[in-house]
Amino acid sequence: MKIVRGLAPMQRWATQQTQNKKSIGFVPTMGALHEGHLSLIRRARGENDFVVVSIFVNPAQFGPQEDFSRYPKPLQKDLSLCRRAGADVVFFPKAEALYPTGYQTWVTVESLSKPLCGSFRPGHFRGVATVVLKLFNLVKPTRAYFGEKDFQQVRVIQQMTSDLNVPVQVIPCPTVREPSGLALSSRNTYLSSKERTAAPQVHEALVSARESLKRGHPVPKVLKETRTILNKTPKSKIQYLEFVDPKTLVSTNTPPGRLMLAVYVGQTRLIDNLAVNTAKLSPDSSKRERDKT
Amino acid sequence: MKIVRGLAPMQRWATQQTQNKKSIGFVPTMGALHEGHLSLIRRARGENDFVVVSIFVNPAQFGPQEDFSRYPKPLQKDLSLCRRAGADVVFFPKAEALYPTGYQTWVTVESLSKPLCGSFRPGHFRGVATVVLKLFNLVKPTRAYFGEKDFQQVRVIQQMTSDLNVPVQVIPCPTVREPSGLALSSRNTYLSSKERTAAPQVHEALVSARESLKRGHPVPKVLKETRTILNKTPKSKIQYLEFVDPKTLVSTNTPPGRLMLAVYVGQTRLIDNLAVNTAKLSPDSSKRERDKT
Repeated sequence: MKIVRGLAPMQRWATQQTQNKKSIGFVPTMGALHEGHLSLIRRARGENDFVVVSIFVNPAQFGPQEDFSRYPKPLQKDLSLCRRAGADVVFFPKAEALYPTGYQTWVTVESLSKPLCGSFRPGHFRGVATVVLKLFNLVKPTRAYFGEKDFQQVRVIQQMTSDLNVPVQVIPCPTVREPSGLALSSRNTYLSSKERTAAPQVHEALVSARESLKRGHPVPKVLKETRTILNKTPKSKIQYLEFVDPKTLVSTNTPPGRLMLAVYVGQTRLIDNLAVNTAKLSPDSSKRERDKT
Repeated sequence: MKIVRGLAPMQRWATQQTQNKKSIGFVPTMGALHEGHLSLIRRARGENDFVVVSIFVNPAQFGPQEDFSRYPKPLQKDLSLCRRAGADVVFFPKAEALYPTGYQTWVTVESLSKPLCGSFRPGHFRGVATVVLKLFNLVKPTRAYFGEKDFQQVRVIQQMTSDLNVPVQVIPCPTVREPSGLALSSRNTYLSSKERTAAPQVHEALVSARESLKRGHPVPKVLKETRTILNKTPKSKIQYLEFVDPKTLVSTNTPPGRLMLAVYVGQTRLIDNLAVNTAKLSPDSSKRERDKT
């Protein structure tokens, strides 16, 4: 496994593979890798000639009061996990190379960046869209893999890629969870042992909201009840719980859709989301959908 | 010469050339081609295996009160000029393909887009940076050629390309002028015959300002005098005249630098600019510069 720090060597390597008609699978990460990231690397491994993992804690996507400086950076462990999961290249650029003095160009995906996390983390998705485009230009991937735990991020990146005609296939991958249901996140390491016990209840509340929606309960009622449950969970304080159209991220009262949640457990902000597909409960309409295709 | 309208065929052709290690020279235009554009196409012809010219009047870079709808579109003449100048491909995309329903991604080059034209045409350089990045992703050029008549545009595109790690070499090319000195522009066709007589005086005023600066006259004095002269020119009304650092476009009182001008001649807005290099007048310092290299 090759470790590349410089931008020019990374881009040269990528150009060479492209000229040799080799496919490149790309997994951009901020390090502190867990089984969620590894599932992306393994999938990339299965679908491409080469696999590149980037490790870069992107300052541009953190707000001034956020956890940029204390974000975990277990580099040696990360490298060994990348190697075992089958990465060919780990791209580990320096912040001053990606954002040199005089840097001033930003990519904004307007509507999709506004609701949900966007309304609580101004500038976050601008930072995400910009760094991902930069990494795409440096790594020149055929396919790029992103976890659906960050569902809004996936939508922002899909839209950016399509709007800007970036020749990269963006592949959303299922959230990996602990047996308790808690979505894996590098930020779970911030949780105290008491908070770790409370955290799975967040997912349970979301699952039970999904079941209510599937049973046909009205969206506003389900959201209200779930918010109450979540705020009663020890150590938990909801930031948002919304039911949205999965393409536009606009709130909707009509399933199917996606339940989107951000919650503080102690001082740690966790996000999660679930698809609510009502097909199973309305066999007739789902049959009609099938007959159409 | 191939005429390509679809985005996917354009990108496929470009990918194929890249895989064959062929270089692509790219000249993005809004059509209404003149000798300035043709000089770019011929230069691209000399330096690359293939030459692509795009013709696209980009709605995103026009303000609501500007000349988008009446911008000249002499397509047949343009195609014949491209052919004669040596283009291999003319890329002529549809607006609804480049900006489909739901389009929402914008590229902003912050500091460089603010002064000069940017302060009078809000959103203009955002539209330029965005469409040029899109075209770069579709045409995958090795080198892209831009005329220095649009000096601020060149700087915005250079900065965008470098900031976003776009693997394209941006090549600024000298302004082509009429024998009178008037910079060639598709918008010169808007001028009445009386205005066409007045227009060259704009360039004369700029040349004379350059000479004064070279002779060591103070920048504020020269700008003030030139503004007075320009506003006395029949049919002319100055929008801005500034002397700026050619890298940052920030106003400076210390040559070398660049004289930047926008002026209305009748209802037609014309721009022009001139490099002011003081080297000739200070042989000692220019010798020192040479010795350094």
